[in-house]
Amino acid sequence: MPKYPDFADRCASVTGSVFEKFRSKMQSQGDRMVGLHIGDSYAAPPYDLPLDKGFISDHPGFNRYCDTFGVRELREAIAEKLQKENRLSVDADEIMMTAGACNALNVSTQGLVNPGEDIMLLSPYWPFFRGMVHLAGGNPIEVPFYTRLYEEPDLDIVSYLEHHLTPSTVAVYVNTPNNPSGKVLNRSQLDQIGKFAKHHRLWLVSDEAYDGMTYDDHVHLTTASFPGMFDQTLSIFTFSKVYMFSGLRLGYVVARKPVLRNLNKMMVHQLYSPPTVAQQMMVEPVRTRAEWSGKFVTHFQELRDRFAERFRPQTQVPEGTYYFFFPIDKLLNGRGYWEVINDCLDAGVAVAPGQDFGRDYADWIRVCFTGEAPDRLDLAIERLNTVFPG
Amino acid sequence: MPKYPDFADRCASVTGSVFEKFRSKMQSQGDRMVGLHIGDSYAAPPYDLPLDKGFISDHPGFNRYCDTFGVRELREAIAEKLQKENRLSVDADEIMMTAGACNALNVSTQGLVNPGEDIMLLSPYWPFFRGMVHLAGGNPIEVPFYTRLYEEPDLDIVSYLEHHLTPSTVAVYVNTPNNPSGKVLNRSQLDQIGKFAKHHRLWLVSDEAYDGMTYDDHVHLTTASFPGMFDQTLSIFTFSKVYMFSGLRLGYVVARKPVLRNLNKMMVHQLYSPPTVAQQMMVEPVRTRAEWSGKFVTHFQELRDRFAERFRPQTQVPEGTYYFFFPIDKLLNGRGYWEVINDCLDAGVAVAPGQDFGRDYADWIRVCFTGEAPDRLDLAIERLNTVFPG
Repeated sequence: MPKYPDFADRCASVTGSVFEKFRSKMQSQGDRMVGLHIGDSYAAPPYDLPLDKGFISDHPGFNRYCDTFGVRELREAIAEKLQKENRLSVDADEIMMTAGACNALNVSTQGLVNPGEDIMLLSPYWPFFRGMVHLAGGNPIEVPFYTRLYEEPDLDIVSYLEHHLTPSTVAVYVNTPNNPSGKVLNRSQLDQIGKFAKHHRLWLVSDEAYDGMTYDDHVHLTTASFPGMFDQTLSIFTFSKVYMFSGLRLGYVVARKPVLRNLNKMMVHQLYSPPTVAQQMMVEPVRTRAEWSGKFVTHFQELRDRFAERFRPQTQVPEGTYYFFFPIDKLLNGRGYWEVINDCLDAGVAVAPGQDFGRDYADWIRVCFTGEAPDRLDLAIERLNTVFPG
Repeated sequence: MPKYPDFADRCASVTGSVFEKFRSKMQSQGDRMVGLHIGDSYAAPPYDLPLDKGFISDHPGFNRYCDTFGVRELREAIAEKLQKENRLSVDADEIMMTAGACNALNVSTQGLVNPGEDIMLLSPYWPFFRGMVHLAGGNPIEVPFYTRLYEEPDLDIVSYLEHHLTPSTVAVYVNTPNNPSGKVLNRSQLDQIGKFAKHHRLWLVSDEAYDGMTYDDHVHLTTASFPGMFDQTLSIFTFSKVYMFSGLRLGYVVARKPVLRNLNKMMVHQLYSPPTVAQQMMVEPVRTRAEWSGKFVTHFQELRDRFAERFRPQTQVPEGTYYFFFPIDKLLNGRGYWEVINDCLDAGVAVAPGQDFGRDYADWIRVCFTGEAPDRLDLAIERLNTVFPG
């Protein structure tokens, strides 16, 4: 079985970065292009970073391997934060640091899903999760959910999910606040998802990357804090969103110790651990989060309102996250979907195509309203208004 | 198929950190324990780190997602380094940044090996690699190699490897300088491995984590620089060893673009990319490597010589890396192997058990002579001399 130049079959089961396909077109526009296609925030972290020579003397082990579950001091600070802000009473040993939520979600699928088993993806969902399920050999079962809840907040969720349940389903992937729809699940909705998972003995993979990034009177709730739910829930958080430090690639998963022991086996083989130095840097920001996060969330809410007001087509206003996600089938004016995406690029705005967020969203687009500074956002809105004259 | 509380079967196919089993015993000894079990260096990086407020203003994107193949400036600096020091003429697009060599090796196995296929592991090998092969569904074929070359430098390598070749073998894992044996492969040896791989159309996964950490007149050679070898070789490097920054979890893989495109698909699903900020920090150290690395390699060579001189049992002196690796079957004095490992721990020295480095090394141990500062190394040698009276 000579192998070279062939690759393993799994390479064909996934695509790379969802934005790869636009790379050359975007590069050709240079600085003119306003990038609202990636979920990121334009500003630097609004808290102090220990970037000085004192950091080295204060952290003698900064350059060395750390405990593969994570730097203890950080996990202790996170445990306090979870108790105070998420009503989740855990200790440091029930937290494992990961290379972003991305890595936490990957080790979760690897740890839970056997080849041939199904995992229910409430959609629209974060694009890479689907690929992770494929790489674990599992089958994603897509269930249109968050967008539907905007229209039907009192949907009987248990019956609805049971309708989509297969005999091979072993887990449910839930994400609140939801990327890309901006939906923030309320207590009753999460309670029903929890009941469904418990009744059918399914693992609940709870992606809470946008923890804290909610607007108006919407509040993020952590499913694992609901009575009886911690045992079978993997709660996943990141430093990429409210901490505005996606470039640090740091996140964590919260679960019972036997779960973490298995996920740790997957992680040490993927990357050993996330960086020691990154973890040490984040101890203070976790402790002071309540002091600095509110101001930026308010700022993001203002940007959301600015987009909602100035963008001519009427769209669903997100309850959390930094995205607008809307169908453009009524805005095509005779053009094809990809023609319109290209029109956006030609006008100088990069947006994310909907198909990556789920089978049912092929005629939607996602726009990140914090991807570039406010003056550039204004420019992007003006340009989008020429593409979508409404 | 209710799943909770069961995990995916693959969890049982690998173990976690090889040092997990000693954790409680080691913790109970506190600071008394000299840790020579992990491959790491006691000193801080011997080059300037841009840890000051100016770093933020100089690197406006430091907190944001980067190109998933890596920060361009760093890859360009690495390309220059590879050309100058490794005689490997590549451009920045033939380099992909990863979360350490660990991550590079994992995406390589995922990208190359299908379930049921074999990969030849020249042994002794870095322990996690075996687990990576299992997680890809592959079968590791262990071939005792580096320790044998100490005794038989002129071994007919092509015939020897052909003797171990199975019909399902798709790749060879080679690691020079070798962890744990300290063997540095010479030109003729690498040339034969290359010929073997080419003749049988096998991918060559070339782990060069200890690039530059060689002693006496031994020189590290990069297989991909040999005529005709680049096409089917994946060359893997790290910032954990000569850069003395294991806690940064940064490394890279060098290969043809089609290879990198497939490995990138695996990586973005595992962690998206290594940290932006970590990559930006390493641009200058890569450029100045020639200025600062020699001094520390000389220091490490002195520590090697100190260990060789003071440790009473006679052992093979490593040609590179920071390990001594030797059999203790003749040093047991009636004790069992694990009893002796425990005696080491009781004496206050943590060492790495040989079984993790390959089936044929169950009665060997590995000692990292740079794991702690020189005075602590001396203490460890004294203690080991009581366990192994020679």
